[in-house]
Amino acid sequence: MNDVIRYLRDQQDRFVDELCEFVAIPSVSAQSKHRADLQRAADWLVSHCRELGLKTKIHRTAGHPIVVATTRSVRSRKKPHFLVYGHYDVQPAEPFELWDTPPFEPTIRGDSLIGRGASDNKGQHFAHLKAVEAYRATQTELPCDVTFVIEGEEEVGSESLGTFLEKHRKDFDVEGVVVSDNGMPSLRHPALTYGLRGVVAFEVHLTGPDRDLHSGIYGGAVDNPAMVLCQLLASLRRTDGRIAVPGFYDGIEPLRRFEREQLNRYPESEAALKRQLGVKALFGERGYSAVEQRAARPTLEINGLTSGYQGEGSKTIVPSTASAKVTCRLVPAQKPIHVLRVIKRFLTERCPKSVRLKFEPGHAGEAYCVSPTGSHAQAAMRALKQAFGRPPILMREGGSIPIVTDFKKILGVDTLLLGLGLPDDKVHSPNEKMSLTAFHRGTEMSAHLWDELARTSAR
Amino acid sequence: MNDVIRYLRDQQDRFVDELCEFVAIPSVSAQSKHRADLQRAADWLVSHCRELGLKTKIHRTAGHPIVVATTRSVRSRKKPHFLVYGHYDVQPAEPFELWDTPPFEPTIRGDSLIGRGASDNKGQHFAHLKAVEAYRATQTELPCDVTFVIEGEEEVGSESLGTFLEKHRKDFDVEGVVVSDNGMPSLRHPALTYGLRGVVAFEVHLTGPDRDLHSGIYGGAVDNPAMVLCQLLASLRRTDGRIAVPGFYDGIEPLRRFEREQLNRYPESEAALKRQLGVKALFGERGYSAVEQRAARPTLEINGLTSGYQGEGSKTIVPSTASAKVTCRLVPAQKPIHVLRVIKRFLTERCPKSVRLKFEPGHAGEAYCVSPTGSHAQAAMRALKQAFGRPPILMREGGSIPIVTDFKKILGVDTLLLGLGLPDDKVHSPNEKMSLTAFHRGTEMSAHLWDELARTSAR
Repeated sequence: MNDVIRYLRDQQDRFVDELCEFVAIPSVSAQSKHRADLQRAADWLVSHCRELGLKTKIHRTAGHPIVVATTRSVRSRKKPHFLVYGHYDVQPAEPFELWDTPPFEPTIRGDSLIGRGASDNKGQHFAHLKAVEAYRATQTELPCDVTFVIEGEEEVGSESLGTFLEKHRKDFDVEGVVVSDNGMPSLRHPALTYGLRGVVAFEVHLTGPDRDLHSGIYGGAVDNPAMVLCQLLASLRRTDGRIAVPGFYDGIEPLRRFEREQLNRYPESEAALKRQLGVKALFGERGYSAVEQRAARPTLEINGLTSGYQGEGSKTIVPSTASAKVTCRLVPAQKPIHVLRVIKRFLTERCPKSVRLKFEPGHAGEAYCVSPTGSHAQAAMRALKQAFGRPPILMREGGSIPIVTDFKKILGVDTLLLGLGLPDDKVHSPNEKMSLTAFHRGTEMSAHLWDELARTSAR
Repeated sequence: MNDVIRYLRDQQDRFVDELCEFVAIPSVSAQSKHRADLQRAADWLVSHCRELGLKTKIHRTAGHPIVVATTRSVRSRKKPHFLVYGHYDVQPAEPFELWDTPPFEPTIRGDSLIGRGASDNKGQHFAHLKAVEAYRATQTELPCDVTFVIEGEEEVGSESLGTFLEKHRKDFDVEGVVVSDNGMPSLRHPALTYGLRGVVAFEVHLTGPDRDLHSGIYGGAVDNPAMVLCQLLASLRRTDGRIAVPGFYDGIEPLRRFEREQLNRYPESEAALKRQLGVKALFGERGYSAVEQRAARPTLEINGLTSGYQGEGSKTIVPSTASAKVTCRLVPAQKPIHVLRVIKRFLTERCPKSVRLKFEPGHAGEAYCVSPTGSHAQAAMRALKQAFGRPPILMREGGSIPIVTDFKKILGVDTLLLGLGLPDDKVHSPNEKMSLTAFHRGTEMSAHLWDELARTSAR
């Protein structure tokens, strides 16, 4: 094990060079103009994994390819087998003008590797690849078998992954899944995440008059769909931050004392959060701390509004249409389909006859929550402690990783969420970065993890 | 007079051909790419007016040129003198895809000349030019002097016109102004408009977090500016259609019985209005008929909404900013500056600390109302009756023609509003058209008008 760790420390600079090469590929899955870049990122991974001696295949899908690379061979069938998940696709980099450095020209500044996808998720799954490399390069026997599944559609809903897992289920007879696609509070607070929020998306489209109208000639006698949209959306949230839709909170268990204690160990003051986000005041559901609001309470967020004239100057119209994109974050026991149903009913009942409402459901994924006291979780806690030199904390997180639910459903196993992101990584925002320290500690955590998992494994 | 009218009837086809030439020039004042087209439209007018034998000048301004053409000469100083106002600029034609024929390829279908600007305002002021042509071509003495002032910035706020009128006030020692830049209820209901609504524009910009945030990581603990915008805007209008801002209705006189009677002579059922606009139900301020709501009551309309992600699919963000464009229509005695002040105060007081509000005032113009019983008004009523063969109705209109207030302030005279537009002209909308009957009757009305005005003129 010492050899492995020594190798990981000796090779840090080269690892970073390699990661920069990977981040430089603009593999933006949401934009069709980047289709060839997605293929390029997948090809880059394939040849990298083959160099590490992994048995590697690229699988075509209806969307972007999935790369599968494994340490497994016929003679290793007895070792405990784990799946490491990652995604090589990234969020759009827009708005470009807000980046201090070009998003696809990775730049090192202090402890940061800046570039779109550095933290979400290229740097994070790359750390796991480097741990496997270290075992093989030092001829240390890897005590588990590890199969990497790295997809290219995470940022657009992972549509191909479920089908793929179903089809190749026999290759994935694993004891558990390891995912580093999330965060820890700080380098001094490594964390195991045992809960994630789910998500459900929808759009609301209102149509009033069948064309934009002159607001002088008609205004006053005909309804304004932009105003109705505002009134409908405004009615969704109460002044105390609670969602006003009857049934929205159905089935949610109150937070247990243990969970609230764990959540509130999160080492960030609300003052620091305000500074970080550039706001004068926070706002959230009354009765919960900011960390609870972000990790363990459901939300309803308007992601976008569109209506009428948005150009320079003014245009005196009653717009014909108005629409909004909305997503809800869900917590365990909230069913996406039920949430959609109650919101649709709420809006439909309130929509006046003067406009037509179209409610369009979008992607959905349930929340996830496992016991943090199982043997795999305990092994992961030990690996985190060894790599970061501090006792890890137990977290729930606000983001959604719908594929975690898929792993449970399709492969029947739980996922260890071992995030290497930091709160200031600006994932999905301009100037995304990955902490190099987090990356390097991550490689060591992964090395320890296979050792610890093998010890607890029921073989 | 018979000669004049006969000439106008004989030449109808040629007039329409000329008008098509004029409408084909895409003189969109709001879009800087059309700057040369504005000049082209002005040049076209200049050469047309010179062909009619009018003394014509083109005046440079800070914006688009103003064309002035007059029948006046040194020896005619004794005739009553009137100003005819028009504008050769047009609204943007967007969205192009909703036009059945290209907006700048004028097309005749039945009684309609279809094209952007046909009704607003090229066809309307062109009718007045043709009346003057008829007098001159038939060697009939024009009993008044007429000076045309045709500007190119009406659709963007007529910014240069005020300064221009101030500067050349001595050329405009007129008894009154004639404007055809509005509408009549139907060809069977010619109308004199004695009141117009004013307008005041503003924008509301909200900023929450200093960048778009991941809605999973931060959502729940930070306010959403799109939601706050919806809540602020929603609070502006009550469910009974009244504007909820204290002070908004300050100073407004209740509608007199005479006015309500006149307004409700407007020959359009609410069922017909619903059909015309493609809505299942109308909506307006409780206690007023649709025609009163449109003509004589103030409004607050959202013209546009912008926030967050508006592209294909979904983007799970808490947007950093949200903004709205709003215009209010004003009625007599409502001061634009006061309306802006009370709305700004209302929004500022309600805006939570979790977002920053910027309130940006835009263009403004006061409402206009004159007595319909004066001698000029009576002369106009007679001219309308002769041209259209029906007794005209007295109207107030919902649109705003801020320059009417300028004429009163700068030249000290009232304006006769003799609209030739029809309710289905789709001004400011795709498929704008002008009724050819309204155009031809308009030329005759204008011919009669100078005769009638000369009779009543106090000379």
